[in-house]
Amino acid sequence: MLAEIITIGDELLIGQVIDTNSAWMAEQLNLIGIKVHQITSISDDQTHILTTLHEASERAQLILITGGLGPTKDDITKQTLCKYFDTSLVFSEKAYANVEKIFSSRGYAVTELNRLQAMVPANCKVIANPNGTAPCMWFEKNDCIYVSMPGVPFEMKAIMEQEIIPQLLDKLNKVIIHRTILTEGVGESHLASIIEPWEDSLPSFIKLAYLPQPGMVRLRLTAYGTDRNELQEAIDKAEKELYPLAGNYIFGFDNDTMESVVGQLLRDKGLTLSTSESCTGGNIAQLITSIAGSSDYFKGSIVAYSNEIKENLLGVPHQVLVEHGAVSEQTVIAMAEGIRSRFATDYAISVSGIAGPGGGTAEKPVGTTWIAVATPTETIARKFMFGEHRGRNIRKASISALNMLRGKLSE
Amino acid sequence: MLAEIITIGDELLIGQVIDTNSAWMAEQLNLIGIKVHQITSISDDQTHILTTLHEASERAQLILITGGLGPTKDDITKQTLCKYFDTSLVFSEKAYANVEKIFSSRGYAVTELNRLQAMVPANCKVIANPNGTAPCMWFEKNDCIYVSMPGVPFEMKAIMEQEIIPQLLDKLNKVIIHRTILTEGVGESHLASIIEPWEDSLPSFIKLAYLPQPGMVRLRLTAYGTDRNELQEAIDKAEKELYPLAGNYIFGFDNDTMESVVGQLLRDKGLTLSTSESCTGGNIAQLITSIAGSSDYFKGSIVAYSNEIKENLLGVPHQVLVEHGAVSEQTVIAMAEGIRSRFATDYAISVSGIAGPGGGTAEKPVGTTWIAVATPTETIARKFMFGEHRGRNIRKASISALNMLRGKLSE
Repeated sequence: MLAEIITIGDELLIGQVIDTNSAWMAEQLNLIGIKVHQITSISDDQTHILTTLHEASERAQLILITGGLGPTKDDITKQTLCKYFDTSLVFSEKAYANVEKIFSSRGYAVTELNRLQAMVPANCKVIANPNGTAPCMWFEKNDCIYVSMPGVPFEMKAIMEQEIIPQLLDKLNKVIIHRTILTEGVGESHLASIIEPWEDSLPSFIKLAYLPQPGMVRLRLTAYGTDRNELQEAIDKAEKELYPLAGNYIFGFDNDTMESVVGQLLRDKGLTLSTSESCTGGNIAQLITSIAGSSDYFKGSIVAYSNEIKENLLGVPHQVLVEHGAVSEQTVIAMAEGIRSRFATDYAISVSGIAGPGGGTAEKPVGTTWIAVATPTETIARKFMFGEHRGRNIRKASISALNMLRGKLSE
Repeated sequence: MLAEIITIGDELLIGQVIDTNSAWMAEQLNLIGIKVHQITSISDDQTHILTTLHEASERAQLILITGGLGPTKDDITKQTLCKYFDTSLVFSEKAYANVEKIFSSRGYAVTELNRLQAMVPANCKVIANPNGTAPCMWFEKNDCIYVSMPGVPFEMKAIMEQEIIPQLLDKLNKVIIHRTILTEGVGESHLASIIEPWEDSLPSFIKLAYLPQPGMVRLRLTAYGTDRNELQEAIDKAEKELYPLAGNYIFGFDNDTMESVVGQLLRDKGLTLSTSESCTGGNIAQLITSIAGSSDYFKGSIVAYSNEIKENLLGVPHQVLVEHGAVSEQTVIAMAEGIRSRFATDYAISVSGIAGPGGGTAEKPVGTTWIAVATPTETIARKFMFGEHRGRNIRKASISALNMLRGKLSE
């Protein structure tokens, strides 16, 4: 099955909106074995839409259309589809029930303008849009499937995930399962070489994608086949077999983040945390507190951006700063122990490094970073060499620090 | 002049890469009065590229093509353009000089594979690519202009800004000038109503765009016409006339950020800063320290995520916390004065609020936030009501706090 994607909307052609829908849809289609032949963005113009639909139908068997389904006059996709299929608009009870549900959930009565959103071409099958009032419409004609969806990304994605992909899988007699495994502390190419034997041994119906981000690499497994139980078992087996090779680097799954995993560990164990940050400048505290409810386990941080603060507020001995410098094992150990005792927490993290672009020396180049974790029984410290880019160094140091803490909490 | 954009690359059709180029190019073209009729993404397939070029040339007078210019075998755009224009590849001294320049700047000798990047269709005009080895090529045939550019966004953008847009403006006998004005402390619709008379009085050759972000609204003025001096004067005049209406909200221009503006003020005046943060959890410190060299004026922060820390480390009186609560005028004033004296800085910021989603009450709903700024002579505090979304509340509180400081520094 070959697909084409048509995105409709003047906002795309004046550059007001980036078309992120197409790439997302293309990825979903590829994962279920449907190749995308062309992506076309056009304006809300009837003639142009008709020509584009006609041309696409000559090349593909599946046409996904987004946009132009709003209640206002400039949205003409439905009328154009009527013309294309030589039919007319009819009132759909199903579409109207959805409009009503959305309005009542927001505490409003349905307006006349939005009532019109329940009018759909007579030949379509209406598909519920859980997050909006625009209907999703499924057409079939001459062995070609046409799906018209709203262009709002979170509406389109919910419809695709809950309805369109499952229905296409049904048509193809296939099922699909995803599992994302999150790793930290290892670069993409090194990870790839470590897990090469595992990757080579994956069954052909499991696809692996490397999704790198600053400070972490996500491994996404996608199993595609006919038997759900068989796929589930295969993906569980693959995950289990990854541990002997890369288990040390794995910190979470699917929608986890480093800060959510660390937060959950602290919460489960009833432990508290404080941080003392130099080069990360508060970024670790900011990550931790981005999680709702983090005040249950996070007491706070001292961002010690000058030696004076390291000395006076964290109790780093003057002699340590003079002899070893602010970016040193001795300093981060004193910082971690200083914040832990002053904030009276169970665990503490400290970071001191040279984020750049200035401040580097031959001995301690930009990217040199010391991280320490203080626990109730010991304090460990480790040196990292990150890169030259300030923003990435801050991000990598923050994730590495949280991962060091995670290691201690998981022991 | 009507334009079409064609983006070439298998990575677009499998959803590995989002096509951000097209929206950016479309915006640039629209600003110089060129309308985009269609955006088409296709794979690295010769037949498909030829058909798409042919169809586009029947609808448009300008065709911008990106992608498929790498040195590897799967990149076939140049060969395909030869076939399209019925010509052959020739060695370009200009393209080679650029390849050599890029390689030598990285300390490498040119490889044979990259030498091939200097081969271009005989009928093209080579345009320098300041950031990469792939050539940019300009063709003209039957009153249609074709420009083939690399797909790497920062290479394409530099070529567009430095070469293509100026050359198109030359062709059109036009010039264009941009000015972005940054505002804070006022929502988009309120700002729009305040500046309506000003907006209505703008000459027709100046376009205004509202670009809202959490915590700020950017106003972008674009002047398009034939006389550079006249445009420059008109845009200067427009900027000047905005001040009586919205001057209180303006904090910067063009590539400024709130943290860079505040940092520059502190640096210019030789002043130091510290912050004490509750609900922002270190985000203000993180913003300040994202600026290279911020250690010259930023001494650090205490993230006081528990009352205990507010009391013990910042010296907020126990009685104040009991009587007024952590989210109160009295608390943020004590926090700001506490951090200012403990960190011995000239200025200090403090924030305490309910970021959500939990913790709200009828009296202090989610979004309630107190911010204080302590100066050498006084401490001011202000209450804000942000929204319900945790991430946006943290971002808005951070920007508002920096803006309050900016107000004091600018006095």
